[in-house]
Amino acid sequence: MSSTPSRVHPAWLPPEALAPLTSGTAAVVGDGPCLDTARRELAGARPAPAREADVVVATGDACADDLGLAELPAPPPRGAVTVRTGGRLVVVGHDGAAALRGLYAAARTAARARLAGRSTPDGVSIDAPEQPRRMLDHWDNMEVHPVMGQVERGYAGGSLFFEAGRVRDDLARVHEYARLLASIGIDAVAVNNVNVHEREAHLLTDDLADVARLADVFRAYGMVTYLSVSFGSPRLLGHLATNDPLDEDVRAWWRQATDRVYATIPDFGGYVVKADSEGQPGPFAYGRTHADGANLLAEALRPHGGTVVWRAFVYDHRQDWRDRSTDRARAAHDHFAPLDGRFAENVVLQVKHGPMDFQVREPVSPVIAAMPRTRVAVELQVTQEYTGQQRHVAYLAPAWREYLGFRLDGEHTVAQLAAGETSPDRPQPAGGLAAVSNVGTDAFWTGHPLAQANLYAFGRLAWDSSLTAEEILDEWVALTFAGADDAALTRIAAALHAMMDDSLARYEAYTAPLGIGFMVTPGVHYGPSVEGYEYSPWGTYHFADRDGIGVDRTVATGTGYTGQYPSPWRETYESLETCPDELLLFFHHVPYTHVLHSGSTVVQHVYDSRADAVEQLDDVEGAWASLADLVGTAVPEAYDARVRERLAEQRRSAVEWRDQLRTYFHRASGIPDATGRAIY
Amino acid sequence: MSSTPSRVHPAWLPPEALAPLTSGTAAVVGDGPCLDTARRELAGARPAPAREADVVVATGDACADDLGLAELPAPPPRGAVTVRTGGRLVVVGHDGAAALRGLYAAARTAARARLAGRSTPDGVSIDAPEQPRRMLDHWDNMEVHPVMGQVERGYAGGSLFFEAGRVRDDLARVHEYARLLASIGIDAVAVNNVNVHEREAHLLTDDLADVARLADVFRAYGMVTYLSVSFGSPRLLGHLATNDPLDEDVRAWWRQATDRVYATIPDFGGYVVKADSEGQPGPFAYGRTHADGANLLAEALRPHGGTVVWRAFVYDHRQDWRDRSTDRARAAHDHFAPLDGRFAENVVLQVKHGPMDFQVREPVSPVIAAMPRTRVAVELQVTQEYTGQQRHVAYLAPAWREYLGFRLDGEHTVAQLAAGETSPDRPQPAGGLAAVSNVGTDAFWTGHPLAQANLYAFGRLAWDSSLTAEEILDEWVALTFAGADDAALTRIAAALHAMMDDSLARYEAYTAPLGIGFMVTPGVHYGPSVEGYEYSPWGTYHFADRDGIGVDRTVATGTGYTGQYPSPWRETYESLETCPDELLLFFHHVPYTHVLHSGSTVVQHVYDSRADAVEQLDDVEGAWASLADLVGTAVPEAYDARVRERLAEQRRSAVEWRDQLRTYFHRASGIPDATGRAIY
Repeated sequence: MSSTPSRVHPAWLPPEALAPLTSGTAAVVGDGPCLDTARRELAGARPAPAREADVVVATGDACADDLGLAELPAPPPRGAVTVRTGGRLVVVGHDGAAALRGLYAAARTAARARLAGRSTPDGVSIDAPEQPRRMLDHWDNMEVHPVMGQVERGYAGGSLFFEAGRVRDDLARVHEYARLLASIGIDAVAVNNVNVHEREAHLLTDDLADVARLADVFRAYGMVTYLSVSFGSPRLLGHLATNDPLDEDVRAWWRQATDRVYATIPDFGGYVVKADSEGQPGPFAYGRTHADGANLLAEALRPHGGTVVWRAFVYDHRQDWRDRSTDRARAAHDHFAPLDGRFAENVVLQVKHGPMDFQVREPVSPVIAAMPRTRVAVELQVTQEYTGQQRHVAYLAPAWREYLGFRLDGEHTVAQLAAGETSPDRPQPAGGLAAVSNVGTDAFWTGHPLAQANLYAFGRLAWDSSLTAEEILDEWVALTFAGADDAALTRIAAALHAMMDDSLARYEAYTAPLGIGFMVTPGVHYGPSVEGYEYSPWGTYHFADRDGIGVDRTVATGTGYTGQYPSPWRETYESLETCPDELLLFFHHVPYTHVLHSGSTVVQHVYDSRADAVEQLDDVEGAWASLADLVGTAVPEAYDARVRERLAEQRRSAVEWRDQLRTYFHRASGIPDATGRAIY
Repeated sequence: MSSTPSRVHPAWLPPEALAPLTSGTAAVVGDGPCLDTARRELAGARPAPAREADVVVATGDACADDLGLAELPAPPPRGAVTVRTGGRLVVVGHDGAAALRGLYAAARTAARARLAGRSTPDGVSIDAPEQPRRMLDHWDNMEVHPVMGQVERGYAGGSLFFEAGRVRDDLARVHEYARLLASIGIDAVAVNNVNVHEREAHLLTDDLADVARLADVFRAYGMVTYLSVSFGSPRLLGHLATNDPLDEDVRAWWRQATDRVYATIPDFGGYVVKADSEGQPGPFAYGRTHADGANLLAEALRPHGGTVVWRAFVYDHRQDWRDRSTDRARAAHDHFAPLDGRFAENVVLQVKHGPMDFQVREPVSPVIAAMPRTRVAVELQVTQEYTGQQRHVAYLAPAWREYLGFRLDGEHTVAQLAAGETSPDRPQPAGGLAAVSNVGTDAFWTGHPLAQANLYAFGRLAWDSSLTAEEILDEWVALTFAGADDAALTRIAAALHAMMDDSLARYEAYTAPLGIGFMVTPGVHYGPSVEGYEYSPWGTYHFADRDGIGVDRTVATGTGYTGQYPSPWRETYESLETCPDELLLFFHHVPYTHVLHSGSTVVQHVYDSRADAVEQLDDVEGAWASLADLVGTAVPEAYDARVRERLAEQRRSAVEWRDQLRTYFHRASGIPDATGRAIY
């Protein structure tokens, strides 16, 4: 049982985090929902004329002179100019949303400087997001799904948006949430699950007034609202005979439905669609392509400036395990790469970062570089479906940063490809970054309080992928524990770095080895089950036998998946000599005695890394325990209780992973652990 | 989706089955609920004076002369005397219930004779049940359990008794069901799940009036009603501080609660209790024994003539798979054998037929012979939890007959031990036979229409364990298809024998091999998952590795379970030379190359028997297809549709079992199939 305090934890925006901005006088110049929000944030400061106030928030149409500045560079699109001079702070955003984000950024800068023990120097900074689109997807159901619960793959309580089959009456918590998102630069939110069940399908029509209430909240924080819609809506909601994207009645139905949406929500973002995937309807049923499908919705949205976010997560989830030639990893590229150039301009193709499904270790999806004339968004998963479900500490930023910095076409990073318009050969505009949120009604938002850092980091990396995971953690710690005194803050930061910097690597080390993935309990995806998916229809196999393990995805002898990569990666992955250890079993089937670049054999690596990783949990627990004297002051008691509860479960689960995998591989290989550690 | 006809199928009591009894004149002598039922059954016959009627039903206090007979032997306890003379049928029961059962028996005799193509000869027969107690347990929940549904391990729709959290208003279907049970000699029914959830606990108190309505129905068919009760009732319902069986307040609470039950239902049967098992409360929490626990309830029931049915299914369901010394198979004997002689006279200890949990192949539980001073009942499972869940044809009678005929102490059969009082050394009176029912609101009662035969066979074997499975199937066919003409009936019988006689052996041959058990998908217990339970806390392991498989339960080198058996079985099972093939892996861990008595190796046996068994399904399907011309006449269309739907699923599932197990053992052993058949 989780210990749940009665108050909601303020995450990284406690009152103290904004204190540096509210201690003097303030002015907000202009009107509009975001500037009104900025005004509320500064309500603790005495009002003053803009020329003289300590803190000024304005938009790009303000004059330098009016703001008491000598000169004022033009704020960049989506960004802001921040001027610090003589103790004054002036934030001028390209628009209200950018100005509000700039205000939060100023709090962040102050917090980081404080942790570093320095003051913020005077000067002018110009800041704009690397990714023009920074979206959070929510897999929230309106009704509690009999298998998936209220929030699909959610580990933090119920939905912030929905309760008992409808949008909540009280949206105070959504306001708090929107504030957190604005502070990390998110600009779009999809409020419902991409698996659109019948009830949720009606959000598009019957429940528009309630969706508008959610959009009102997000608008005040600079975000537009998206809906996940069912491709089957024309039949389901419109009672048409077909959903065929080329059918005139279907096109008319979508146009009219979309017109009604915009009549209610003029700045509506658009639609998110999971089609022909895991049972969702799609264009395949009518012999149409996914371009036909996406363009149908794009046509309806275009007059209003809306966007279709079309997911590339399409594969055969009814695969026969006996079929060794079909390779799920190939599916997205096989389906979508041939369609490059055929999507309308307001279609964004959203591609999971890896070819499978958010495993702890996957290669980068080759689709991201395969469609230069398509707006490609990269999808990450903040919710820890396969990374410990917010019971294990797993700070995801190091992996995300690695993906985003990966030069997939040999030249551009994934972040650059998502941000678009990288070269004349790659003329597509931004797809941007999207992620599946990890929040819920839990008092700590995210179940594990430390999992807040993952949501924080996603926003920050979408803004600037050059930030290091350690820098982001510093920011998050300094903001979250802004109420701690300097000495305490320093100690907390040190402890959390010790716990979190290597946490994902540690999780990887005690779970599925060397890029093989899965090995989780089917359905729930938590805890080990080495053979759990081995004879399933899901296309997630490891082919372990008494001799070896791994999936041969080479062109030479395997499924040919490596051939989907541009050079140099196709050659790198194709060859046993150059394939990195951590992805070895993703690309190759090898004997247990195969010697890794590390010098260890595959099976000894399995034995060692699982045992070593569990031993490291002593240090993780010790780091947290070292803060015991701060509990009740800098660290709330409920926070401490929750963290300790999760650490205990992490250890239990990690021991289970270690022991099951060591035993499984020993039974399979017959090879003893060279270190002599116990195998059960 | 199942095809569901709108009408309820009459199972083995269609109007035609009773036609031989209702074509002439009839008399029922005496009054009482069961005789009234007999009167209703004979309502189609013209009434006549008892001396002259073609069919007469009476009880033992009737005089021969009054019935028009020269002489009349005394009916035995629970039994009846049946006199056939000159076309007249006179049934005289020891009491009304026995008389009613005798009437149904006459219909059965007539049906069997018809199928055999002979007439029933004149004469006197005296018939009494071998088992004085013949009980059906229902694992029905009042509310739909979030995991287990309305009927735990039920595969035939909802509960006949409960709907939406209460006893049904309309009990017409319960009447039909009680009639079916009376016709096979059942005399006791427990109406609710042995896993007593909070709602169901209240049946004992708040819902007594509704339980009484159920008891009224069963009484009219010669059955008493039991409730499954929670050992935690004093705290849960009585708000006492403890459930300690030696606490005075607890004893008083049970006495008073029981007095109230009998005030409402004077012939109430008693309580069924699952204590200290799989999370249910029990006496262990208070440092008391199960004898203390059972005797607590026995004390409350004794003044009213009630019985405690105390289940011996007690084991550690939180076992650590790393612990190779704990053996779940030992648990019931370890817990209960030392308590022999300490249970009150009105306690029946109900023991599952095997030491594990209703696997397709288990040895007989040694507990059944280990407690000569205890009333031991043997529990069978009619619902096919581990035998295909009423989607596979699996006629269970051959296995039950084998268990019941097994001479567990070297002298007495299991049936004799359950029937009690076998010798001065074994003074205990009857425990009897119990089984978990397989019925529900399904229009065919049991999901698979052919699974009706299992319910039928349980009742018949509890009555007479010397009946062969084939004889019972003949009876069931002749009654069920009583409306068919002679030629059709003969063909149907032949087809169903071809489908059903070896169906359980066939199911065994394509599922877990050689007595190893489990290998099912965790939770649902349907379909293969070779390693599904291998690292679980349930104590159900096979220890397969690259060299071999099986559980060493010997005294010499294993868990010592074989030592729980009397001679000669302890020696038989202990030795690899004498252990029967079909139980080899239950008792021994052997290499895949171990040569069976059959001459095959273990691994080749796995390969062959799975492939052969699936091939046999051609004949099963062919047998049913051979009846196609009878569909719409002797075989209802909906019946045919349901059977064909289930046969298709059986094939799909059997192929999956075959292929997964063949692949698993090939991967583990590296040994090719000597026949060269494909391994995936």
